[in-house]
Amino acid sequence: MTAIITGTGSYIPTIKKENKQFNGNRFLNADGSSFDSNNTVIIQKFKTITGIEERRYAENHFNASDLGYLAAEKAIENAGIDSETIDYIIFAHNFGDVKSDAIQSDILPSLATRVKHLLKIENPNCVAYDILFGCPGWVEGVIQAKAFIKAEIAKTVLVIGSETLSRVIDKHDRDSMIYSDGAGACIVQASEDTESGILSHASQTFAKKEAFHLYFGNSYDKNEDPNVRYIKMYGRKIYEFALNHVPNAMKIALDKSNVDISEVKKVFIHQANEKMDEAIIKRFYRLYKKPVPEFIMPMSIHKLGNSSVATVPTLLDLVLNNKIENHTVEKGDVIILASVGAGMNINAIVYRY
Amino acid sequence: MTAIITGTGSYIPTIKKENKQFNGNRFLNADGSSFDSNNTVIIQKFKTITGIEERRYAENHFNASDLGYLAAEKAIENAGIDSETIDYIIFAHNFGDVKSDAIQSDILPSLATRVKHLLKIENPNCVAYDILFGCPGWVEGVIQAKAFIKAEIAKTVLVIGSETLSRVIDKHDRDSMIYSDGAGACIVQASEDTESGILSHASQTFAKKEAFHLYFGNSYDKNEDPNVRYIKMYGRKIYEFALNHVPNAMKIALDKSNVDISEVKKVFIHQANEKMDEAIIKRFYRLYKKPVPEFIMPMSIHKLGNSSVATVPTLLDLVLNNKIENHTVEKGDVIILASVGAGMNINAIVYRY
Repeated sequence: MTAIITGTGSYIPTIKKENKQFNGNRFLNADGSSFDSNNTVIIQKFKTITGIEERRYAENHFNASDLGYLAAEKAIENAGIDSETIDYIIFAHNFGDVKSDAIQSDILPSLATRVKHLLKIENPNCVAYDILFGCPGWVEGVIQAKAFIKAEIAKTVLVIGSETLSRVIDKHDRDSMIYSDGAGACIVQASEDTESGILSHASQTFAKKEAFHLYFGNSYDKNEDPNVRYIKMYGRKIYEFALNHVPNAMKIALDKSNVDISEVKKVFIHQANEKMDEAIIKRFYRLYKKPVPEFIMPMSIHKLGNSSVATVPTLLDLVLNNKIENHTVEKGDVIILASVGAGMNINAIVYRY
Repeated sequence: MTAIITGTGSYIPTIKKENKQFNGNRFLNADGSSFDSNNTVIIQKFKTITGIEERRYAENHFNASDLGYLAAEKAIENAGIDSETIDYIIFAHNFGDVKSDAIQSDILPSLATRVKHLLKIENPNCVAYDILFGCPGWVEGVIQAKAFIKAEIAKTVLVIGSETLSRVIDKHDRDSMIYSDGAGACIVQASEDTESGILSHASQTFAKKEAFHLYFGNSYDKNEDPNVRYIKMYGRKIYEFALNHVPNAMKIALDKSNVDISEVKKVFIHQANEKMDEAIIKRFYRLYKKPVPEFIMPMSIHKLGNSSVATVPTLLDLVLNNKIENHTVEKGDVIILASVGAGMNINAIVYRY
């Protein structure tokens, strides 16, 4: 019994926020001091490193669960299944539903329950729960779906990743320009076809000094309320951590799959930072003493930013729908899905279409 | 391969809050109006229905993840395992870490990562994630542990349930007297012994009109900030829902296990409300046309209140350590673990010791 992805869907929020729209922000250092350079320079430097030109924000009346529902609806339609046959709904996020005018995360009930509610699923045996696993949460949800299928407690699983990071950012922090909103989803199903589907996976949590590389912290503006916290990160440390550990986790997964590196057609890496992703793919191929093949790594970060759990499923959905230039996936192709984020968590899936 | 519980642990917070300490509260109806009866009457009525005399609150310097860590440490010691051999840490909660003086849930990084950090586990292949599944989250974590063991991706899993509900309550809501803080944990391990361990389970999510029976809502004091929300519930609806569905879910699990009802020695039900639990157990036995056996259902609610995800593992740990009068579990005994809560989620596990 293998686990195959039979449908994908994504929801790209409609509000486009371009880099120049951050020109009016008063960016500060972590200690609250001002920068020597002006915003034009700061934004240019930001773009050079991350590759991000613009990002998407959800409309005020949508919460993360709504975006997740919209992506889920498309995945169900794409898979051509009856939603009443879904055994599990797994919803990955990191902040829950944060209303546009509030600072509290609303996670009661779970976002998976909200999606089940919106999908109007009657079947009580469709079990809906959320996972918190940093940005790799959606990939981890797919791994859990595979486990449930292998354990024979599920045949059809809906896995959603959705986030509204625009609502948890400190406007005085340059890193706030990285984050965006979005949602992606897929249907994972049990299959007798042992040739395709999830061939292997790797999953890791580094919780020593790395545990708080991404954290919930105060504004860099020291005059702000110390009881209000935002998404915060030690970017440099994350960059080094990712380079040291992500290629290795990808290799663990690929070696377990018994697929040769030359067979890998596409690598979908969490869209956190263009320079970081380029360095990761280079190190990954170096582990096999190979050059990086052309058009191996589709990217969406330039226009969509970093929407956490949503980047990998959204990118996969875009490529499968021929919406990323020079990137297609054909039947039989081996792809790798890989992610890294808060936890610090890393995971990778080797998959044959 | 079966999944067996090889160790349990719990942490009972030190601050005792007695019913009479609510005498000074200004309780209001949901519409903001005052009650006709005084607090002595309200509190007496509350005690009659729920059975709760007192509850425990965590000390200010402890968050939910700290309580979870303290319970986990005991479970690991009780199981006699090396913490470096743990493959998964599953942490169930509903509100994350809420500092005693703040209103925001801190779930970045996950609470499972925080526990791994506090336990100083080096092994990166120990995967730490959180689940949100209402009060049945800990029981669901045990079900997931079993799935990972059956899928052969884990041999040893630490499952934690921890909550600090005292930090998300509306002091103008009578229901606030129900909630308490606490943590429970267990170690689930793969075993060749096919006689004992988890024999079967049932798990359900009701997300139609029931989805918002428990929700995050405003204070009953209409003068309070509408952007500050608390745990809220429609108690009457939950009572009816639980009576209609929990006995049935327990029966589904028991029938799957092929164990006769007469073999069941103890039933551990989520400690939400004494009257509700008594009605559930009565209906459960009525489904088998049997009277409720004496000493079948251990209770801790009188002294510990409702600590959500923590009630079932804490109660199990207390009984296994002979700390609940007239209740013991011997080798070979069949027990049922059952829970109900936000989602609305229900689950049950049939287990042979």
